[in-house]
Amino acid sequence: MRLDANDLRRFCLAVYAHEGFAEDDAAYSTDVLLGADVRGIPTHGVRLLPRHVEYVRKGIIVPAARMEVVHETATTLTIDAHRAIGTAVAVKTMHSLMRKAETSGVAFASVRNSTHFGIAGYHAALALEKDMLGIAMTNANPVGLPTFASKGMFGTNPLAFAAPADREAAFVLDMATTVVTNGKIERAQALGQPLLPGWAVDGKAQAVTDAAATCPGLVSGSHFILPLGGAGEDHGGHKGYGLAVMVDILSAALSGGALGPEVRYHTESYPGPLLSHFFGVINIAAFREPAAFRADMDRMLKRLRECPASPDQERVYYAGLKEFEEAKECQRLGVPVDDEVYESLCKVGRQMEILAPQPQRSRNQ
Amino acid sequence: MRLDANDLRRFCLAVYAHEGFAEDDAAYSTDVLLGADVRGIPTHGVRLLPRHVEYVRKGIIVPAARMEVVHETATTLTIDAHRAIGTAVAVKTMHSLMRKAETSGVAFASVRNSTHFGIAGYHAALALEKDMLGIAMTNANPVGLPTFASKGMFGTNPLAFAAPADREAAFVLDMATTVVTNGKIERAQALGQPLLPGWAVDGKAQAVTDAAATCPGLVSGSHFILPLGGAGEDHGGHKGYGLAVMVDILSAALSGGALGPEVRYHTESYPGPLLSHFFGVINIAAFREPAAFRADMDRMLKRLRECPASPDQERVYYAGLKEFEEAKECQRLGVPVDDEVYESLCKVGRQMEILAPQPQRSRNQ
Repeated sequence: MRLDANDLRRFCLAVYAHEGFAEDDAAYSTDVLLGADVRGIPTHGVRLLPRHVEYVRKGIIVPAARMEVVHETATTLTIDAHRAIGTAVAVKTMHSLMRKAETSGVAFASVRNSTHFGIAGYHAALALEKDMLGIAMTNANPVGLPTFASKGMFGTNPLAFAAPADREAAFVLDMATTVVTNGKIERAQALGQPLLPGWAVDGKAQAVTDAAATCPGLVSGSHFILPLGGAGEDHGGHKGYGLAVMVDILSAALSGGALGPEVRYHTESYPGPLLSHFFGVINIAAFREPAAFRADMDRMLKRLRECPASPDQERVYYAGLKEFEEAKECQRLGVPVDDEVYESLCKVGRQMEILAPQPQRSRNQ
Repeated sequence: MRLDANDLRRFCLAVYAHEGFAEDDAAYSTDVLLGADVRGIPTHGVRLLPRHVEYVRKGIIVPAARMEVVHETATTLTIDAHRAIGTAVAVKTMHSLMRKAETSGVAFASVRNSTHFGIAGYHAALALEKDMLGIAMTNANPVGLPTFASKGMFGTNPLAFAAPADREAAFVLDMATTVVTNGKIERAQALGQPLLPGWAVDGKAQAVTDAAATCPGLVSGSHFILPLGGAGEDHGGHKGYGLAVMVDILSAALSGGALGPEVRYHTESYPGPLLSHFFGVINIAAFREPAAFRADMDRMLKRLRECPASPDQERVYYAGLKEFEEAKECQRLGVPVDDEVYESLCKVGRQMEILAPQPQRSRNQ
């Protein structure tokens, strides 16, 4: 079904307010969740709202927490998030970096003791409106298998990079450094589909395709997701492994947060160490005239978009283009929400006596 | 065979001097080539010295060229390399950034109109001695196939990231963003071995395993290397594709250099547009106490190194560890050089009347 964006937003804000979040944190977090749904990434959308409520109740997310700048220079921030909600931590940190980069050219932040920050691409893309390049990364629960290993040592550790264009949709790369995310495996389980070989393995490094066994195995540590590039080194699995560790270094080693397998976010072993993030902003004007940069980006992205497709394909995309087109469609038709997610929102609404968002027939459908 | 490092260095310096390179450019370039050989990456080692001579003669590399800073701020450099030798351009740019980052915390450079810079990991690792994180990237000839496409639109576009540890070997990631490099395909051809399925395709996106057909096809544009993650989206090929474009944006769009398929370095269409690079330096002290960072790195890297291996493997590595161990061995035994490469060096020596490096029996072998 589709929901009206304003109505859904009203609902999220009310839920966050009910849980004691400050107005700005509630608004930022709502925007991050909706931003995932409209981009066609429902695993990170309003589906997480009931989980945020659950995590507040368990004390994993602390609504009253205020992130603290523990070290600051003209170009850097080291932040302890003190269990504040990661979605808002990320947005506020990006805003700080963008202010810094207006004068300093570039600015970076490393953040410890935070919680799930939503989609990395949302945060990276915040820099676009200021003609800046944006970078966002986070570590995650250790479901990822190093090359040649038999034990999870890093998370899906996504990294995002955004660069503005002029007439073309912006380039927004948002990728797990593992071959797939937990969400993709959970989705296979929900649909009763097998996993593709090359996604996950058991503790003996044997390929597994049974989603129903893999999902709990990722939590208990008996099953693992392969790094981007797959098993071994033949197809570059050591590269995905290396990228995941790079994300851990920038996020956690630079901030003093929990590293690799120390991370225990939303597992049975709570209270445990939380998540760490890394953010960056590069002001294009510190390198060259932004209009010239955007013109070059247009030339490059248009060429990719118009690149002849292989015989079995219709068209070629670039990172961010599908999500841009999806978001345009959502503006017209409303925000798509699964029945099951809608039910979970309604349940939260009933408990808090907040009117659930109303399913809409789109004006233009 | 193994060559004495000092003798090999003496030879390279004399060859570069013969071609008219300034003393510092010759020394930097020599160190970069030797740095590849001792790390076990002979595709980027002294094997390239005769090619540098050839490119000087063709006018692709200009020994007298001086790289020009076309824009500068406290944290950024935009550089036109004016066809100077990329190996030295990279080292000198990293040195400039390290000086900047001592006061500015972070510093980045985007470089256009440069030539092949050797291994990216060498340049990133220069930052280690100053307790800084190093970043190096470059674009390359367009042998890489976008997801769903039938035409090469980006290069192997390597990216490197280095971070210091204390007692452990530093973390040095140096990876092509394609599934393999040209070098790996050339090596298969030289050994008469087939390519692994999933490395390369023809213009109809059909897998090819014939190395002898693929090597010329990469130059003529009839064959392509797949992005890291492989064909399609099932195993994340769109991620490797996205990373390659990210490297192009930071290197070429930010510097005003040749973008994606415009790059024509060392192909028959010379004179054509050259290579672009991106470099970065992050001063750890701008985020936290470097000793604490290095202690955390040790904890993380030791844990990876000691991670239980899968049943069919002996041990687990992390990025940079194999190369570190290889370099230690070379310190003891000398620099390994293929017979064919040695012959090509001798030939250059004869032409220039420079004594070729003498094969050694290692002292300790």
